[in-house]
Amino acid sequence: MMRIGIDIGGTTVKAALIDDARAVLARCTRPTRANEVLENSLNELHSCIEELVAAAHEAVAGIGVGVPGAVDYRNGIVNEPPNMSAWGRVPLAEILHSRWGCAVAVDNDANCAALGEAGFGAGRGRTSFLGLTLGTGVGSGIIIDGRIYHGERGFAGEFGHMTIELNGALCNCGNRGCIEAYAGIEHLLRHAIPVLRSEPACSLHRLALDAPESLTPRDIGEAASAGDEVCSNILRTVGTYLGVAIASAANLLDITTFIIGGGIAAAGAPLFGGVSDSARERVLNVHRDALCILPAQLGNDAGMLGAALLVP
Amino acid sequence: MMRIGIDIGGTTVKAALIDDARAVLARCTRPTRANEVLENSLNELHSCIEELVAAAHEAVAGIGVGVPGAVDYRNGIVNEPPNMSAWGRVPLAEILHSRWGCAVAVDNDANCAALGEAGFGAGRGRTSFLGLTLGTGVGSGIIIDGRIYHGERGFAGEFGHMTIELNGALCNCGNRGCIEAYAGIEHLLRHAIPVLRSEPACSLHRLALDAPESLTPRDIGEAASAGDEVCSNILRTVGTYLGVAIASAANLLDITTFIIGGGIAAAGAPLFGGVSDSARERVLNVHRDALCILPAQLGNDAGMLGAALLVP
Repeated sequence: MMRIGIDIGGTTVKAALIDDARAVLARCTRPTRANEVLENSLNELHSCIEELVAAAHEAVAGIGVGVPGAVDYRNGIVNEPPNMSAWGRVPLAEILHSRWGCAVAVDNDANCAALGEAGFGAGRGRTSFLGLTLGTGVGSGIIIDGRIYHGERGFAGEFGHMTIELNGALCNCGNRGCIEAYAGIEHLLRHAIPVLRSEPACSLHRLALDAPESLTPRDIGEAASAGDEVCSNILRTVGTYLGVAIASAANLLDITTFIIGGGIAAAGAPLFGGVSDSARERVLNVHRDALCILPAQLGNDAGMLGAALLVP
Repeated sequence: MMRIGIDIGGTTVKAALIDDARAVLARCTRPTRANEVLENSLNELHSCIEELVAAAHEAVAGIGVGVPGAVDYRNGIVNEPPNMSAWGRVPLAEILHSRWGCAVAVDNDANCAALGEAGFGAGRGRTSFLGLTLGTGVGSGIIIDGRIYHGERGFAGEFGHMTIELNGALCNCGNRGCIEAYAGIEHLLRHAIPVLRSEPACSLHRLALDAPESLTPRDIGEAASAGDEVCSNILRTVGTYLGVAIASAANLLDITTFIIGGGIAAAGAPLFGGVSDSARERVLNVHRDALCILPAQLGNDAGMLGAALLVP
C-alpha cells in the first residue's frame, strides 16, 4: 500500500511517497504560499501530490497531512493555522479526497512529528512517549500505545504551556512561568544575549554585541561543542528547566520516554545533559531508572513521515 | 450481575454490594489490621465479603478492590502499600479468586475513587476527567474515555508531584515545588498555623496558639464559611496553587473537567473559588470556557464504589 505524507509549514510544503516497508520512494517540496490566497496554496499542494502519484508504482491508498495549529482531526478540518493568513477554516480532508479519491487524514504537525518518530525514528519499539519539538515554541505530541493521544477535543500535547514557575517569565500565551517561556528560541536568545555580552571570554561575545539578531541556538550549541563554557552553561540551564516539566509529565502520565527534536535540540550535549540530570533528580523514585531522554532522529522529515502514518 | 467493591484503607476496610442498576444493596466495614500480620487483614477481608455474599440475592460475579500505593493492576498484585506494614507483595486477586471463585480486580485507591465519581458521582456523563483527592497527599486518578488511564506501568496519576515552583517548598518525595508541598494537609497546616497565630482577629487564633495539632482543614473551612477573612485567604491561596497544576494538566492532556474531593476539599467555597480563578486565568484560551472544576460527590465512598466497577 502506497501512502503520501505531507507536512505543510509556514513557508514550505514537504511531501513523500512511502510504501508498506516504510521506504521513502519519492520526495517533493513546494512553496506553501500561505499568505497569498488559499487557491494558490491548494494548487501547490495538488501539484505536489500529482508528482508523487506519478512516481508511485500502484494506486496511492492514502494521504496524511500535518498542519500547524488547531486541527479538527476527526473531520480533517484545519482551523486558522498560525502564520498562514490565507488559510481560515479549511476542510482539507474533503478537498483532497474529492480530488484524489483516496483516504485522507489531517492532524496537527507536532502530533505528526511524534508519530513520525514512533514509526521511523527514535520512538521505534516504544509504545508510549512524549515527542518534543523545540522551535519558536515548545511543541509536543503524545504517543500512547502507538497512537496519537488527542484529548477531548484534539488539543492535547501543549507541553510548552506547563507551568514550571508560579510567577515566572511571561509566556506568549499570557500565562507566567510556562516552560515555553524558558525553552522557546525567542526566550532562550533573550536570556542568552545579555549573558554573552557580559562575558568577553565567550566566543560569541562579539556577535552578541554586533549582530544579536543573527544568533541562533545552533551557534550557541557549536560554541559549546568547541569548549565554550558560557554557552555550555546557557544550554544546560535551558535543559534544566525542560527537565522540570518532563518530570511533571512523567509523574502525571507514567510515560518515561521523551524524544526531543527541533532547532534548539540541535544545540546538543549540554542541553541533553541538563534535561537528563534535572528530570532524573526531580521525578518520583519509581520512574528514575526507566527515564529515557532521546534526541529525535528525523529532523525536519518527522512531520512528513508521521503524516503518512495517519492513514490507517 | 452483583458486584462487591472494597476499599482497603490504612485503618478501615469498607465494602459494598452493588447491582447492575448501581444501587448499593448492602454495606460492611471491618478494621484493616494492617500492622498486625497479613492473615489477620485477610480474615477481616474474607469476613466482610462473606457478609455481602450472604446479602446477595444471586451469585456475586466480581470483586473489585482498591488499595493504597503501587498496584500491579494487570496481575492484581499489591506492592507494599504505605502505612500497612503487614502487607508486602500480596497477590490479592489470586487470593480472593481462589477463595470466592469469581472475577477479581485490584487497583490503586485514587484510581478507584476517580472511577467511582465516573460511575456514581460528579463524573457521570463525562468521558474524561481528572479526579483529585486532597488528603495527606494529593492523589489523583485519570479517567480517559470512561476508563482508568494507567500509563506504562500503572503508576499514572501522580498529579501531586507536578512542579509548580522551580525552587519551591520541599515535598516528601524529595523534589521541590510539587503541588503536594502546597496543597497536602500537612503542608497546608504548616503554612496556615503561623498566619493564624499572627492574626488576633482570626477566629482560630487561640486554637492555633494553644492546640495547633488539633487544627484541621475543616476547621479552617468552617471559619471561612462563618466569614473569617484570614481563613478564607488561606484556602483561596491553596486553591490558587492547585489551579496552576490544573492548568498545566489541562494544557497537556486536553482534559477540562477536574473533580476535587478529600479532606481539604471539604473546606469548601474559598478553595474552589481560588482553584477556578487561577486555573481559568492560566489555562490556554482554547480551554478557558470548557474548564469545569467540580466538588466530588461521594466522599469516603468513592473508592469502594469505584472498586466495584473495576470488574468488567
